[in-house]
Amino acid sequence: MRVNGRAYRTIWRTPDGAIAFIDQRFLPHRFLIEEVRTVEALADAIREMHIRGAIALGAAAAYGMELAAASASDADLPTALARAAELLKQTRPTAVNIAWAVDSILKAVAGAQSAEELRHRLRTAVDALVEGEVERCRRIGEHGAALLETLAQRKATAPLQILTHCNAGWLGCVDYGTALAPVYVAADRGIPLHVWVSETRPRNQGAALTAWELQQHGVPYTVVVDSACGHLLQQGMVDVALVGADRITRRGDTANKIGTYPKALLCRAHGVPFYVAAPSSSFDPTLTNGTDIPLEERSPEEVHTASGLHGDRFVTVRITPDGARAWNPSFDVTPAELITGFLTEYGLFPATAEGVEDLLATAHVYP
Amino acid sequence: MRVNGRAYRTIWRTPDGAIAFIDQRFLPHRFLIEEVRTVEALADAIREMHIRGAIALGAAAAYGMELAAASASDADLPTALARAAELLKQTRPTAVNIAWAVDSILKAVAGAQSAEELRHRLRTAVDALVEGEVERCRRIGEHGAALLETLAQRKATAPLQILTHCNAGWLGCVDYGTALAPVYVAADRGIPLHVWVSETRPRNQGAALTAWELQQHGVPYTVVVDSACGHLLQQGMVDVALVGADRITRRGDTANKIGTYPKALLCRAHGVPFYVAAPSSSFDPTLTNGTDIPLEERSPEEVHTASGLHGDRFVTVRITPDGARAWNPSFDVTPAELITGFLTEYGLFPATAEGVEDLLATAHVYP
Repeated sequence: MRVNGRAYRTIWRTPDGAIAFIDQRFLPHRFLIEEVRTVEALADAIREMHIRGAIALGAAAAYGMELAAASASDADLPTALARAAELLKQTRPTAVNIAWAVDSILKAVAGAQSAEELRHRLRTAVDALVEGEVERCRRIGEHGAALLETLAQRKATAPLQILTHCNAGWLGCVDYGTALAPVYVAADRGIPLHVWVSETRPRNQGAALTAWELQQHGVPYTVVVDSACGHLLQQGMVDVALVGADRITRRGDTANKIGTYPKALLCRAHGVPFYVAAPSSSFDPTLTNGTDIPLEERSPEEVHTASGLHGDRFVTVRITPDGARAWNPSFDVTPAELITGFLTEYGLFPATAEGVEDLLATAHVYP
Repeated sequence: MRVNGRAYRTIWRTPDGAIAFIDQRFLPHRFLIEEVRTVEALADAIREMHIRGAIALGAAAAYGMELAAASASDADLPTALARAAELLKQTRPTAVNIAWAVDSILKAVAGAQSAEELRHRLRTAVDALVEGEVERCRRIGEHGAALLETLAQRKATAPLQILTHCNAGWLGCVDYGTALAPVYVAADRGIPLHVWVSETRPRNQGAALTAWELQQHGVPYTVVVDSACGHLLQQGMVDVALVGADRITRRGDTANKIGTYPKALLCRAHGVPFYVAAPSSSFDPTLTNGTDIPLEERSPEEVHTASGLHGDRFVTVRITPDGARAWNPSFDVTPAELITGFLTEYGLFPATAEGVEDLLATAHVYP
């Protein structure tokens, strides 16, 4: 996607073999590029959310394996990769894409006859994985735009009102986005639409990242506090909800950013379709029930504070009293029953065990 | 209630006739008292939320009428009171308590035979109204504590888990609180309990005010982001929800801080009782349907920003991109069907037209 007219991905390999990415902590106020040369530095960046979003995390993990290989001697390669795999998988537990990417890379290099062959296979696999994710997101955009077009036709000339949560745009992927990919394609085709962006406390990925992305692309949007979504739905101000996913189980239960589940329940209560947009890499064929998904809890400091621009400085302010207790669960699980469908690179699938089985039979991304 | 060991109300008359109140904008970081001597200054303080909460707003409006009378000549009294009534009613539209208080005062002084009699009657009426609100909140605390005690018995020794939203504590009233009054009484009686405080963006009355109140009183609590409530309910971590109200209609539809309605829907989905605590002064006998309640929209700036302590300075930070669009509806309406009951100074009433009719027949606070 374009930032101030120049094409960017969220993460890429530099000509001299470093991994560069947009440091998302200071957006929309500062557009910073960070470069790392070790898997340890990349793992820190993942943990501290310099880079975030299920698809971007998968790509980062793949690049992390490449960095681990690059700094290992030929003799140490197997150990270095095994250690990097463990390190990366432990950074953030909820998005399945990290484990999926790491396991994909390990599978691709298994049985290599020489260090040279291993290094070659690894780089090829990393490129294939990253390009695959870009292509899957592009296709989600195409399929989703067709869906939005159908929904928009019912509105005649009034803009289609889309609700989203957190950031499932290109910043959360390598390019294009998941939930926002269809929005960009539909907007480019001239379909009148408007996006309700819920701010997504405590880290404000909605207010900071999604708003910035949509603004860069010229898509009309309005930021609301997370709590306002009940009122929006009740007032008939939403036609369709589109969110991303961090992990989807075999029965269709979906982990996504905290606050997704209440929105799904509200959509159901008001008869509004609720779609989850995710490539097949976000489906976890090893889990059946949503209760089995490991849900990350982050530091209570995120709840105690808010960050933003004060004058020309990026600062953090404390909201709660000294000594206050806070809890910061970062994800919730939306039961399959509340999801209208999964928007994937192969089109729309029902949010049922059969739907997920069909998708898994179609997709070929599993290690 | 006590602040650092000293008894306070949120608003009071000073010995020399000014009106003093706790300026709630800087809590929990700064405890400031503001004094005003004109109804115009008081109206500004209401509009800018130096003082807030339905019951506190009613008391402030009554004191505002007194200030208007105090600065008017005998000849100007009727005009000054009529003008003050209009001014105060226009400050904030949703809480019915402002109109109720103003109309109560106007009714009390109607037919006075002299300016002296009017001034005497007015002051008596203001005192009766304010003391009445204090007493009504105290009784809500008594009735509510009995309810919490019953619920706690089912939990044996585990703490009763209470969910609240915004601030319906003593800061939102003159003293005691509405939703928090039962919590204080129950805690004083040694009932084991814990309060989940949802932060209540955009102004964080939960994270800033409710957390501070509970901490001052030594009640165990944990702050969560508003979006986390779905996860809390889904995980069975809430036994009962207790919130306040800004206006309740004849059929029981209830306007309260934005985010109340999603919580009520979540409680219903998970079989958790959802109580609204409010004195009879928050019921509006002139409205039937929730859709008739005027819902305040405040400045989008509140959504764009967050405020808190940075080092030792209280500062505001900007979260959204320059030029972003935001919308800030401040209240939503919870339909009566989602409310388990109204906790009032006369005890518990069903959230039905019959229940409200019974309460209105019992209560004698209407002008």
